[in-house]
Amino acid sequence: MPVVSQLRESLPAEIVIDDPDVLATYAQDHGAWARVGKPACVVRARGTADVQAVVRACIATGTPVVARGAGTGLSGGANATDGCVVLSLDRLDRVLAIDPVERIAVVQPGVVNNDLRAAVAEHGLWYPPDPASAAWSTIGGNVATNAGGLCCVKYGVTREYVLGMEVVNGLGEIVRLGRRTAKGVAGYDLTALLVGSEGTLGIVTEVTLRLLPARLPEITVAAQFDTLGQAADAITGVARAGIVPSVLELLDAATLKAVDDWKNLGVSAEGNYMLLANTDVPGESGQREAAAMQRVFDDAGAGFSAIAGDQEEVDALFAARRLAYFALERHGPVITEDVCVPKAKVPAMIRRLEEISAEHDVYIATLAHAGDGNLHPCMPMPPDAGEDLQKRALAAFDDIIDAAIELGGTVTGEHGVGLLKMAGLAKELGPEVIAMHRAVKAALDPHGILNPGKIFT
Amino acid sequence: MPVVSQLRESLPAEIVIDDPDVLATYAQDHGAWARVGKPACVVRARGTADVQAVVRACIATGTPVVARGAGTGLSGGANATDGCVVLSLDRLDRVLAIDPVERIAVVQPGVVNNDLRAAVAEHGLWYPPDPASAAWSTIGGNVATNAGGLCCVKYGVTREYVLGMEVVNGLGEIVRLGRRTAKGVAGYDLTALLVGSEGTLGIVTEVTLRLLPARLPEITVAAQFDTLGQAADAITGVARAGIVPSVLELLDAATLKAVDDWKNLGVSAEGNYMLLANTDVPGESGQREAAAMQRVFDDAGAGFSAIAGDQEEVDALFAARRLAYFALERHGPVITEDVCVPKAKVPAMIRRLEEISAEHDVYIATLAHAGDGNLHPCMPMPPDAGEDLQKRALAAFDDIIDAAIELGGTVTGEHGVGLLKMAGLAKELGPEVIAMHRAVKAALDPHGILNPGKIFT
Repeated sequence: MPVVSQLRESLPAEIVIDDPDVLATYAQDHGAWARVGKPACVVRARGTADVQAVVRACIATGTPVVARGAGTGLSGGANATDGCVVLSLDRLDRVLAIDPVERIAVVQPGVVNNDLRAAVAEHGLWYPPDPASAAWSTIGGNVATNAGGLCCVKYGVTREYVLGMEVVNGLGEIVRLGRRTAKGVAGYDLTALLVGSEGTLGIVTEVTLRLLPARLPEITVAAQFDTLGQAADAITGVARAGIVPSVLELLDAATLKAVDDWKNLGVSAEGNYMLLANTDVPGESGQREAAAMQRVFDDAGAGFSAIAGDQEEVDALFAARRLAYFALERHGPVITEDVCVPKAKVPAMIRRLEEISAEHDVYIATLAHAGDGNLHPCMPMPPDAGEDLQKRALAAFDDIIDAAIELGGTVTGEHGVGLLKMAGLAKELGPEVIAMHRAVKAALDPHGILNPGKIFT
Repeated sequence: MPVVSQLRESLPAEIVIDDPDVLATYAQDHGAWARVGKPACVVRARGTADVQAVVRACIATGTPVVARGAGTGLSGGANATDGCVVLSLDRLDRVLAIDPVERIAVVQPGVVNNDLRAAVAEHGLWYPPDPASAAWSTIGGNVATNAGGLCCVKYGVTREYVLGMEVVNGLGEIVRLGRRTAKGVAGYDLTALLVGSEGTLGIVTEVTLRLLPARLPEITVAAQFDTLGQAADAITGVARAGIVPSVLELLDAATLKAVDDWKNLGVSAEGNYMLLANTDVPGESGQREAAAMQRVFDDAGAGFSAIAGDQEEVDALFAARRLAYFALERHGPVITEDVCVPKAKVPAMIRRLEEISAEHDVYIATLAHAGDGNLHPCMPMPPDAGEDLQKRALAAFDDIIDAAIELGGTVTGEHGVGLLKMAGLAKELGPEVIAMHRAVKAALDPHGILNPGKIFT
């Protein structure tokens, strides 16, 4: 029996959708350029039992199942494959519990990141991971890709906040992994293994998250530099000073110019590279840390530097960062790269990006989580981009990956492998480690139905 | 060919040891009560190539290999099985690199925890995980068990500091897992999977560790309480106040009495339960946080409370904690339990421990990392303990595990499963999750030679 018929036997008709127009909207994430298949149907699960029913039907019929949240992923990890079932978890959007003493939240995977952050804030708590997609992306998607964000430089990525989960595994069983306690080493860390596995090892139906107490407002320090060498000295100088900023972002000349072309903030006139740093150390110590960062920036040769005195000034300093993506998107859909290099190699990587841009005659503007070494070179593609430009952009994309690996980096800092980074991953890990991935995948997904063909072949 | 002969063909005679007296010293860790087998030989590896040679010889001959560091483990995870090769990594004790800008250290597995902490301190850096065994235990052992310690309540366990590793895998290949960059989501998190796997999925031959900047001296707040209810209010009160202490330890009446019986510090006269809290928030904010904790303790009904003004006072307040294990060991070798419960359940767990102690007529004294909910009920066994006492102690041990699971906790917070917690683990995880463990083990150790028979059957 075809999978759609089988699903309709166990699930109500209104959640098993095969209308071609609807299918199209569920068939892909935001990973431009990644191939998109035609799903057999979409199931909008109402709960864990529905997820289990889908996995069991897929096992019985040998059908791939591609789980998805909001579809904001940037690597094609949630793209449909031909004939698959797309399993949408967007309706599983309840915050099940918030416990201020244990500092945990228990949530369904479809809860939007910002909604969770707002819900826990009401209890004086804070969920740190803050991907740029936080207004739309779901916790399930964040877990599947091990999402990062601006505050990761001090607070780490999603994995650091996932204590435990309920999962429908590759045998169609509902299991609990991990724990609700602060510590625990009971058996293999299958929870950490599932985080970032992009739906290939199990489908997460509930997550127990670790929270932190709400923090005080941050203090912002901004600076601009004429040369990359100056910006580099500033970045390493912060590390050498023993400071852990809560944000450390870099915007390059192309990004600053794109912002000014749109909003004319005058940021491109102040210097070619902008650094934005925050500290959230409380009280006088925080003020001292902000002053110390400004000194580091000035000593590195900043042509402009400032400490924000209030929220209005913070917002003004961060305006360029906030507007950057939108400014770039005016030129067309943006391909966002995600390489990560040792932080002392950020300048070398940016220099390579400038060379790659020139060599291939492709417009590249770079935002970087400089404190992590995680760079987002952005390539806006004009809607009328011809085949030639697309070819050159693809070649630039490959060169960026090679450059990151050469500099001791990784092909993906926070977006995941999906489809777009599969070739890069194979280069980075080598055949023995890819074979270990295959062995783990076969062990936990013996029927080969969980998002097959993603991450590695 | 027997494994010893085969090893002697590829390795120098002096590192392949089969002298029975030497074998006995390498055959077990500190996990009292765990069964100990008779190894075929001990190999004291000089480098990764030796580790690979051992694993390959074990694959060829179907021989179990049990890796070990300093043997300070408390669960029997490093105990020899009959006919196995014990692979000692104690000679691999070099710190290979410390990088103050990337804030990483690259070390061999045999480096002693305290030696690493001293080495990175010279660069203004700090490696947080601080198990009680830090003066002897090795980083390799800490990684194998995902070791914790006092500062985990704020800084997390070993896993949070392992970025990448070199591993000899179950096929005898030398592979690199993880990364040296701050962030990275390139493929499955096999690094996290290996951490805490107790030598059953691969043998770690090099570790890349994340470091933090050196921190300022902590401020200590101590308090004593007559009733468990008061101590409980104090623990949850700290959480409710939005404070993350850098240490939060609890000592029970039996522990305080053991200390006084030995050193007569007078701590048992001040109250039945002692709480020790530290804050490492810098400057005036730290002083305010210490004062806030003292207020929480006083409001909870502390009969005694104090903030240490200098290091001498800190040492005095921590004297009972520092002496506790030694005081208990005067009564005989100590069986140290390691259950972890939600932190609001610490008082309920302590009450159960008092009941279990009475029911089985077994002496139980409890130290707890109260801020994590991680308890160490200690059972000193007099050297002349008869069979009857041993039986009662074993029954108490089982009851403690059951009580922790009933309270929503885990059977091991930081010591690992080894041999002693295998039955408890099976209860905690259930057959489906144990089956997932078996599948992962079979995938990465297809010859079944890596410390078989530990963690699960």
